[in-house]
Amino acid sequence: MGIITISREFGSGGREIGKRLADELGYAYYDREIVVAVAERHEMDENYVAFALEGGITRTVPLHFGRTFSYSPTMMAHETKLLREQNTFLKEVAEQGNCIIVGRAADVILAEYNPFKLFVCADMASKLARCHARAEENEKLSDKAMIKKIRQIDRDRKRYHGIISDIPWGDRHGYHLTVNTSGRDAKSLVPLIAEYYRHWRAEQE
Amino acid sequence: MGIITISREFGSGGREIGKRLADELGYAYYDREIVVAVAERHEMDENYVAFALEGGITRTVPLHFGRTFSYSPTMMAHETKLLREQNTFLKEVAEQGNCIIVGRAADVILAEYNPFKLFVCADMASKLARCHARAEENEKLSDKAMIKKIRQIDRDRKRYHGIISDIPWGDRHGYHLTVNTSGRDAKSLVPLIAEYYRHWRAEQE
Repeated sequence: MGIITISREFGSGGREIGKRLADELGYAYYDREIVVAVAERHEMDENYVAFALEGGITRTVPLHFGRTFSYSPTMMAHETKLLREQNTFLKEVAEQGNCIIVGRAADVILAEYNPFKLFVCADMASKLARCHARAEENEKLSDKAMIKKIRQIDRDRKRYHGIISDIPWGDRHGYHLTVNTSGRDAKSLVPLIAEYYRHWRAEQE
Repeated sequence: MGIITISREFGSGGREIGKRLADELGYAYYDREIVVAVAERHEMDENYVAFALEGGITRTVPLHFGRTFSYSPTMMAHETKLLREQNTFLKEVAEQGNCIIVGRAADVILAEYNPFKLFVCADMASKLARCHARAEENEKLSDKAMIKKIRQIDRDRKRYHGIISDIPWGDRHGYHLTVNTSGRDAKSLVPLIAEYYRHWRAEQE
């Protein structure tokens, strides 16, 4: 039974690597699927659940709009409940084995299952190019706005990870392998990562 | 022409990986050889040169011995000269191509040669076990003393790197690949890293 968790900087190609790795290995793939599952169980809007799960409770609160914005205790409790629900779902997925989970701090949540932990990063120029290339026509951003978005998303990821783990998000000690995709075709790295993983897994047995 | 630089935490098995990788690829291997070359050119004691080059000028000065210890300007100038000499030698080596260089901040010094940059890390338990296993009979240390030594050496490496590079030592963005050897046999990783490197190199051409 094999579990791979992929943590990644926004725009580094981690999700693409995850999907292709799942194809290569014949593993189930989970990313947005987790949000959908949690939303369905709660009969809630998928986008709201995504917001709540993707840094909602830990998000930097913008104070510069001239008024103090704070989450109400009810909202906090609600988001905490959704996170718990997500973690329960992650463990159900892990129990079934042979899967790849992108994000969701699954590396920490599923630690007891001894997953292979991969981190994917890239320099800002590469992330910017990748984000621009995949943006829909109606959501084109300037470089400046895109960089801001990339930084904000990673800040949220880092913050949530910091709440539940002693090892900082992206720190080399938290992963078995850290791959830098700067200037590279993410696709072509997949067979190499798959081989590295197979070897690691063989050593565990 | 290929150049691989290996940066590593003390005790992570980075040097062993470097040597075996050199065998696997048929590349020249440089580590202590660099100290020897610099010492010979200056007709100086190898151990003094090693001390000076391995963090001498950036080493944390122990103030707790009850007296202030400081390098004299002459010593500083001398060590700076040795470092310059080392960098000249590194570039001579790089010009010849097909080589692996362990340490010496070669990833930064040889940036213009576009080396493949590998970082090797491990958790403290694995580093401790590896250091104890390779220690000579007459230099056995307690766990506590060994951990202190490991931390001190890495602190020196980090400090020197921080002087010459904007990217912190060990930060994922500074390397093409970061490998965690915790609980693993360093030897068995070599073919996988070699394959990753060959692939990277093919993409550069």
